Amino acid sequence: MRMVDIIDKKRNGQELTSPEIQFFIDGVCNQTIPDYQTSALLMATYFEDMTDQERATLTMKMMESGDRLDLSQIPGIKVDKHSTGGVGDKISIPLAAVVAATGIPVPMISGRGLGHTGGTLDKLEAIPGYQVEISEQDFIKQVAKEKLAIIGATGDIAPADKKIYALRDVTDTVDSIPLIASSIMSKKIASGTDALVIDVKTGSGAFMKTLDDSVALAKALVAIGKGVGLKCMAVISDMNQPLGYKVGNSLEIEESIDVLKGKGPEDVKELMLTLGSYMVVLGGKAADAKTARKLLEEAISSGKALDRFRAMIKAQGGDERVIDDYSLMPQAKYKIELPAKQSGVVEEIKADEVGIASMMLGGGRQKAGDQLDYSVGIELKKKVGDEVKAGESLLTIYSNRPNVDDIKDLLYQNIAIADHADKKPMIYQVIE
Amino acid sequence: MRMVDIIDKKRNGQELTSPEIQFFIDGVCNQTIPDYQTSALLMATYFEDMTDQERATLTMKMMESGDRLDLSQIPGIKVDKHSTGGVGDKISIPLAAVVAATGIPVPMISGRGLGHTGGTLDKLEAIPGYQVEISEQDFIKQVAKEKLAIIGATGDIAPADKKIYALRDVTDTVDSIPLIASSIMSKKIASGTDALVIDVKTGSGAFMKTLDDSVALAKALVAIGKGVGLKCMAVISDMNQPLGYKVGNSLEIEESIDVLKGKGPEDVKELMLTLGSYMVVLGGKAADAKTARKLLEEAISSGKALDRFRAMIKAQGGDERVIDDYSLMPQAKYKIELPAKQSGVVEEIKADEVGIASMMLGGGRQKAGDQLDYSVGIELKKKVGDEVKAGESLLTIYSNRPNVDDIKDLLYQNIAIADHADKKPMIYQVIE
Repeated sequence: MRMVDIIDKKRNGQELTSPEIQFFIDGVCNQTIPDYQTSALLMATYFEDMTDQERATLTMKMMESGDRLDLSQIPGIKVDKHSTGGVGDKISIPLAAVVAATGIPVPMISGRGLGHTGGTLDKLEAIPGYQVEISEQDFIKQVAKEKLAIIGATGDIAPADKKIYALRDVTDTVDSIPLIASSIMSKKIASGTDALVIDVKTGSGAFMKTLDDSVALAKALVAIGKGVGLKCMAVISDMNQPLGYKVGNSLEIEESIDVLKGKGPEDVKELMLTLGSYMVVLGGKAADAKTARKLLEEAISSGKALDRFRAMIKAQGGDERVIDDYSLMPQAKYKIELPAKQSGVVEEIKADEVGIASMMLGGGRQKAGDQLDYSVGIELKKKVGDEVKAGESLLTIYSNRPNVDDIKDLLYQNIAIADHADKKPMIYQVIE
Repeated sequence: MRMVDIIDKKRNGQELTSPEIQFFIDGVCNQTIPDYQTSALLMATYFEDMTDQERATLTMKMMESGDRLDLSQIPGIKVDKHSTGGVGDKISIPLAAVVAATGIPVPMISGRGLGHTGGTLDKLEAIPGYQVEISEQDFIKQVAKEKLAIIGATGDIAPADKKIYALRDVTDTVDSIPLIASSIMSKKIASGTDALVIDVKTGSGAFMKTLDDSVALAKALVAIGKGVGLKCMAVISDMNQPLGYKVGNSLEIEESIDVLKGKGPEDVKELMLTLGSYMVVLGGKAADAKTARKLLEEAISSGKALDRFRAMIKAQGGDERVIDDYSLMPQAKYKIELPAKQSGVVEEIKADEVGIASMMLGGGRQKAGDQLDYSVGIELKKKVGDEVKAGESLLTIYSNRPNVDDIKDLLYQNIAIADHADKKPMIYQVIE
């Protein structure tokens, strides 16, 4: 078999066979296929797409290139959730707790943030002592006992995907549905979950800017999942403005705990309950989403959800007293208001730019490996559709430096006030 | 400027600017752009094509990456010819002589053969003593005095094209019109000619198999040439069977000399006179092709064309006595006939396979650098449309090994005899 013939098949719009995809992935891993041939195949794939069969095969071969978690020791249907990434997206944290409270094991493998998007692991590390790197055996024990754990990837997950992703980034082949979908799914399947609910973000702050693209990606993800025997669903949710009011690590943990206490912003609650309902259905604890939602609401009101969160913090070495005293988490020195320059209705708050503002304050990474300041961030006082009077605060900047003129400029440029605003729905579509 | 942004523009179907193409070519030459980015751009170009403006710019930037011959010391309009390559294609040799005989300077830079196609330089080296590597100054002097020279490239011609071509070969981006056309034209423009007639082959033995593709390539080549101020035309000629009767190095020199003596096969004469007519028109020695053709016929009948060929051989150190005694060139030990297995009409003689047969006998190269046996080859006794009786010879195999069963098998498989045959025209179209 020759790589140039595989490129030729794809370039001419033909379907690659399983042995051909295996040859490609093997060659990427053992470096017998040079990068210039890989990038040619990636670009041909961008133009010629892949069939459902090819996408499922590529996903499995990338998954099989590395370690796969074996969670069979944990009784019950394990359910995980994945998000394509947004700003203020702390959903995983209350979601894992509320679903675990219904008795479903939630073995969650999460990631770190880069650029304008935050990462669940970074947020959890705002809790003093919380360990995200724990051994596979401790992870399994914890999920079996406490029903939940949120940790970083253990072992060498999908190394073929890592190499291919690094090339895609520099060869302009990132935004290809078959490549995005196989990359996401290879890692999630390696995490050993039985079922998966995927939150595909749509809008200006999302990777997929249009609803059409988001639906296409969601369908691709679900098709791959089902193609390899995973229980799988996707929800398309709004990312035209930040999710909730708080953006930043300590700040998002606060908001997460608020939600688990039955308080917190409506949009965060709504998204959590929607994703959670489908997780409960896939986990076999309810026959339909409506019933599942009631179970989740009870888990909140009874305090069981908060209890699961407390148990997780404790199990992973964190200081669970943060639940009752947010000031135990890193606190910013300065709180600086951003007054509205005019009266009107908030028309737009560009999510990605708010994420960049938080990153510039030190709350996010410009490049992998950057150290974080957990205390900083943005707290919105107004969201899209809210009325505001000139001089009234639009948001609070949490900073450890007194001068935040650069941040203010950026935010003023990316918040629009007008006569009226169109409010967007939180949930656009569910793909089963 | 970043290469990934250039890839993105092309991938999204936008036109690259001159500075962007310059950045790309510079990066290829000084190796600041990695091969995986170059191959991504090549594949994007395969799918998204290039405008006439981009093609002309790419050609000029590749040309400027290396040396350019300055032929301004030679008086008159210098005219060259290029062929996209075929089997039995010795046209350059008699063509250069007959055009030079009309007083037009013909500074011809030719290449070597690879695979099933032969090379003009290889054929000329069948003449004992003939030197294809001569200095730029000697080349200029010879063309000024004798009106013709056929040599190999001097200096470092279009190194950017060399690097890009090597990548195209292994990334399945060879058959892209803008890439083929810019590759050909960058080298021809570097050769310093004022005018160029291009012979674009079409058919089973050609790089372009269909007439549509051949026309597209011809138009692209002419558009680039005109775009950069070169006088330029293209002729689309048949390559469904070998050109002429003889394939092989000594054999093709014999046939070339025959043509210059007013003998030789009709198809070779016809193609030579067609290409030559347009060269004479571009060279300003005739107002139209018909008048030009008469000048060429007179150059043959008067012996002036043969005289030019003799002068060139002498000037380049060759033994000009070969003109009257072909046996001074290397001769094969064995001449083996291939008898027809049935009676009928020759329906097909696959040109590329005849080229491969000649290569297998030692007359061509499997890979660059292979040594050649000038004496071997194939002499057709029948061409498409000819009647043949069972047992009558289809062709003669010139070999230095007694057993040529492999060659016979290959040829039998690729020569079809039927009840009737459709004869194809020699010239399909002229692109001005």
